Amino acid sequence: MNVKHCLAMENERSSSAGKPIRCKAAICRKPGEPLVIEEITVAPPNPHEVRIRIICTSLCQSDVTLWKLKDFPAIFPRILGHEAIGVVESVGDDVDEVNEGDTVIPVFLPECGECKDCTSKKSNLCSKYPMTISPWTLRYETSRFRDLKGEVIYHSVFVSSFSEYTVVDVNNVVKVDPAIPPNRACLLSCGVSTGVGAAWRTANVEAGSTVVIFGLGTIGLAVAEGARLCGATKIIGVDVNPKKFEVGKKVGITDFVNPKECGSTAVSQVINEMTDGGADYSFECVGSAVSLVQDAYACCRKGCGKTIVLGFHKPESQLSLGLLEMLLSGKTLTGCVFGGLKPKRDVPILLQKYMNKELRLDDFVTHEVKLEDINQAFDLLLEGKSLRCVIWMENDKVTPV
Amino acid sequence: MNVKHCLAMENERSSSAGKPIRCKAAICRKPGEPLVIEEITVAPPNPHEVRIRIICTSLCQSDVTLWKLKDFPAIFPRILGHEAIGVVESVGDDVDEVNEGDTVIPVFLPECGECKDCTSKKSNLCSKYPMTISPWTLRYETSRFRDLKGEVIYHSVFVSSFSEYTVVDVNNVVKVDPAIPPNRACLLSCGVSTGVGAAWRTANVEAGSTVVIFGLGTIGLAVAEGARLCGATKIIGVDVNPKKFEVGKKVGITDFVNPKECGSTAVSQVINEMTDGGADYSFECVGSAVSLVQDAYACCRKGCGKTIVLGFHKPESQLSLGLLEMLLSGKTLTGCVFGGLKPKRDVPILLQKYMNKELRLDDFVTHEVKLEDINQAFDLLLEGKSLRCVIWMENDKVTPV
Repeated sequence: MNVKHCLAMENERSSSAGKPIRCKAAICRKPGEPLVIEEITVAPPNPHEVRIRIICTSLCQSDVTLWKLKDFPAIFPRILGHEAIGVVESVGDDVDEVNEGDTVIPVFLPECGECKDCTSKKSNLCSKYPMTISPWTLRYETSRFRDLKGEVIYHSVFVSSFSEYTVVDVNNVVKVDPAIPPNRACLLSCGVSTGVGAAWRTANVEAGSTVVIFGLGTIGLAVAEGARLCGATKIIGVDVNPKKFEVGKKVGITDFVNPKECGSTAVSQVINEMTDGGADYSFECVGSAVSLVQDAYACCRKGCGKTIVLGFHKPESQLSLGLLEMLLSGKTLTGCVFGGLKPKRDVPILLQKYMNKELRLDDFVTHEVKLEDINQAFDLLLEGKSLRCVIWMENDKVTPV
Repeated sequence: MNVKHCLAMENERSSSAGKPIRCKAAICRKPGEPLVIEEITVAPPNPHEVRIRIICTSLCQSDVTLWKLKDFPAIFPRILGHEAIGVVESVGDDVDEVNEGDTVIPVFLPECGECKDCTSKKSNLCSKYPMTISPWTLRYETSRFRDLKGEVIYHSVFVSSFSEYTVVDVNNVVKVDPAIPPNRACLLSCGVSTGVGAAWRTANVEAGSTVVIFGLGTIGLAVAEGARLCGATKIIGVDVNPKKFEVGKKVGITDFVNPKECGSTAVSQVINEMTDGGADYSFECVGSAVSLVQDAYACCRKGCGKTIVLGFHKPESQLSLGLLEMLLSGKTLTGCVFGGLKPKRDVPILLQKYMNKELRLDDFVTHEVKLEDINQAFDLLLEGKSLRCVIWMENDKVTPV
């Protein structure tokens, strides 16, 4: 780097770089209690870290899970939130990948780009920096957040986006084109990417395939969107809430099954009949009951069917699988994190697909609120009224609910 | 078809065509008791069927399983045997695929070539004629075998090759080049194809991969052979019998683990250390214990590892799998029949690989006996002394044990 370039960079540095920032954040002080908007201080980034001004964030079901959780890995007070987009305010030492002013999407899944798994085409699970439900940033067992009394506030899954500013490891950021509307781009931080990726990268759905999706929340609907993009011709949605069928049609779901209307016939039998012997791909996107995984497995096709588990099950949930049946059926069962996507490789591809009007994101945003109204976002999700509620950090950009 | 051609075919018909044939067979009259060499009659083939003069057959572990079995689908008296090669003696009506004099390998797995699954590139499980442990030929609930008292003798898995002549559906035969030595070709009827196919077609092992194989019987060794052919660079064999390690080296196994020598360290931990975090592919080829499947799953790599179950487990054997662990690990679990091979497409490819000296079959044949000594083949397998014992139908071709 020559002197002229160094000077230019110095000039570009924000006035806040290297100093703590005082800003607002929504803090979870106790499990299951409304978040509290407080002023906090956000320390400058350590080496390999990036401080980001969050533009907007959205609420994902796993934030609600962590918000409710009383036991390990629960920890309080904590700043939740992991679907977001923002602008780099400053970078720590040894950060070359992004610069101040870059638009970035933070992601919970680290990608060092150098380990055996990051350099493999097949895996998206970095083995140098494994994903955890950490209360810290990626490389340090310390927090960048404190409240005004000086007490530590914990991070959440390396992102903590329910704050005007956050600090994230460079392995957890994806540089993106600033032209994409932020209230669409933020969805690719987790849920929508997980569903689309599960169809695209994990299942590798082919044109003409049949797909069945158990659970039509954001992830299930995003699986449908991914399957549609891959050219699946029959996409069956299974949900007990008939309202989900309306939005399902918009993302390419062609057929619906409501288990409550199947009478004494097993759901898997209904689907086996609809698909002439089983779907090519079945996705379980609920996570509440082991029986749904069994149903998904039962209705994928012998000889080639793949069942992909996306539902976030309880740690004690065990699937019981007949080994002889598994052998003779030739079926495949798999799980995936972030839909099998490599964040830095794949999120920009999905953003480009949105800009090309191939990937549909608009229908996933059902509500938008200001940071100060973040608890409304929780209520809407808990009541099953929203898919994604976007939470804006700057008041002037807010569109009311 | 013109008249000249019809006449030519008529001239080619064997003198036995259309008539019952009297020949010798090894009959299982009671479970677990020595087979009895008896004279039987073999009826002419029905439409879509082929009568085959068996040249030689080999004993597979699943024949031993069916021989011991007392309950359903056990049935007696029965002619076991399903790894073989022979020559078409005559064909029934509506058989166009093979003619009298063709060399064929019978296979237990039907392939109609026309159904949704047979025409798909992905599945090898014919849905028009599913594989079963049937006591009949494929299309008819009748037997072609009778003893000299006129009593029915049952078929086994559509093949019944422990007889000088058998009748098999055309969907269960593969026409092959007669140039290949029969005591090598017969191995591709089941066990060796299953192992090689599991590495090649089901797992799709890539060059440079790491592979771990639990159980070094014929199938496990054939997996090693398939993995070696696919370019795997580290092939770890796991077996409690140290003698298996010697033959293992010949088929490409590079490293050995004897669970009895692991002390208090779990086998999966030993393998995770040997492979720097887990093998790309793990194969369970034993079938006796669910814990081996768990071990195989535990030692395949997070993010991309595939576990393939080939062991023939008891119908009541259930694998318990933590769903959250499965989700977060991104691992894949699958089973397969006949290694995922389509018999008519893939067996000729494997035979060609043998003729090209790429695929090694010679080391799998450890013993050869005459039909009258077939019970020796059972003893050798039960005592763990043989991999494949070839049983010759014609005395002059027999090489003594």
